[in-house]
Amino acid sequence: MAQTGRAPNRLERRKARTRAALVRAAQGFIAAGRVNVPILEITQAADVGMGSFYNHFATKEQLFQAAVADALERHGALLDGLTEDLDDPARVFAQSFRLTGRLHRRSPELSKVLLGNGLALAGSDSGLAPRARRDIESGIRAGRFTVRDADLAMVVVAGAAICLGQLLHEHPERDDAAAADQVAEDLLRMLGLPPGEARAICERPLPGLDGRAPGGT
Amino acid sequence: MAQTGRAPNRLERRKARTRAALVRAAQGFIAAGRVNVPILEITQAADVGMGSFYNHFATKEQLFQAAVADALERHGALLDGLTEDLDDPARVFAQSFRLTGRLHRRSPELSKVLLGNGLALAGSDSGLAPRARRDIESGIRAGRFTVRDADLAMVVVAGAAICLGQLLHEHPERDDAAAADQVAEDLLRMLGLPPGEARAICERPLPGLDGRAPGGT
Repeated sequence: MAQTGRAPNRLERRKARTRAALVRAAQGFIAAGRVNVPILEITQAADVGMGSFYNHFATKEQLFQAAVADALERHGALLDGLTEDLDDPARVFAQSFRLTGRLHRRSPELSKVLLGNGLALAGSDSGLAPRARRDIESGIRAGRFTVRDADLAMVVVAGAAICLGQLLHEHPERDDAAAADQVAEDLLRMLGLPPGEARAICERPLPGLDGRAPGGT
Repeated sequence: MAQTGRAPNRLERRKARTRAALVRAAQGFIAAGRVNVPILEITQAADVGMGSFYNHFATKEQLFQAAVADALERHGALLDGLTEDLDDPARVFAQSFRLTGRLHRRSPELSKVLLGNGLALAGSDSGLAPRARRDIESGIRAGRFTVRDADLAMVVVAGAAICLGQLLHEHPERDDAAAADQVAEDLLRMLGLPPGEARAICERPLPGLDGRAPGGT
């Protein structure tokens, strides 16, 4: 809490506020499906000058990537909060996967931008990938999961998460909750759980995400 | 073998030859990592006129997609040939997945174009997706696989195939054969095989692909 060197801190805080305003504005346009919006309109919605945009982002795509990363990070933090009372890593993993699978219909435009950057996000060190990895490693340590290589288990989990979103967009008649629960159950078997236990875990009631959808409304 | 109506057939055959020459030329450029090659150079390599290109493809990207789809179809046909003596659908699935996982290093440029179109190809009705689906359904019918929904099992398998390729490109130090075998083993558990059996199947010797790499030399 040093009182010296305040000036750069104030500048940094202002820069962070500008960036956050741009990211929030972009999330609003993504949620509204308006990803072709001109940069000028984004800066107007964020109430920042056009020049400020280029202090933070080289292109609109870069801003949108940051907006998706931020939304995923907030979704991840939400999942963490919802699983903190669970002791079993298998339940933690399954609950987070089942809730994430429900995002594609709740936040379809966010989901589409996410799928467009899916492979890069699967290797990202923020958002959902590092949390899924942490849950897999914790399951291995606890002896719940028997996979030999956590990186390769992550390959299967991340790939399933992305392709599930794609399937749900291509097949609007599909029940997203049932599909997400079934894929989570399949993944628990992949991770080493016996079939009956995998099923029971994925049939448990879920806490709600109501009013807390990321990047939207 | 009708002798009448020959003229249109000859024209059709010539069109098919032109298209095939363009596709082969594109596969050569992809294999060489030259995906930024101008269309003129592709038509010269294919020994067809520049105008012929636009009779078949609207853009270079469209040709490259056709080239990747053709290479995958040929790889799929090769996999079919290599598994035709196998009775166990679990062995058929595992052998094809393990051989496909080895493609990313053998044909890295083809693999990168493939990953760039991965989500579209995962839903394609030619190439590898329909074959993997056929093998999963055959395993379910034979009672070897216990997954309840073949579409959702395909979501996991296709996602794993794509993200495995991404991991192998991002981590050149990884042993591609060991990684592909481990993911295949994880997927067999996902499909319902007991862990020991999944492991044994993925440790079996593989037939060689030598001299038969798609999209290349």
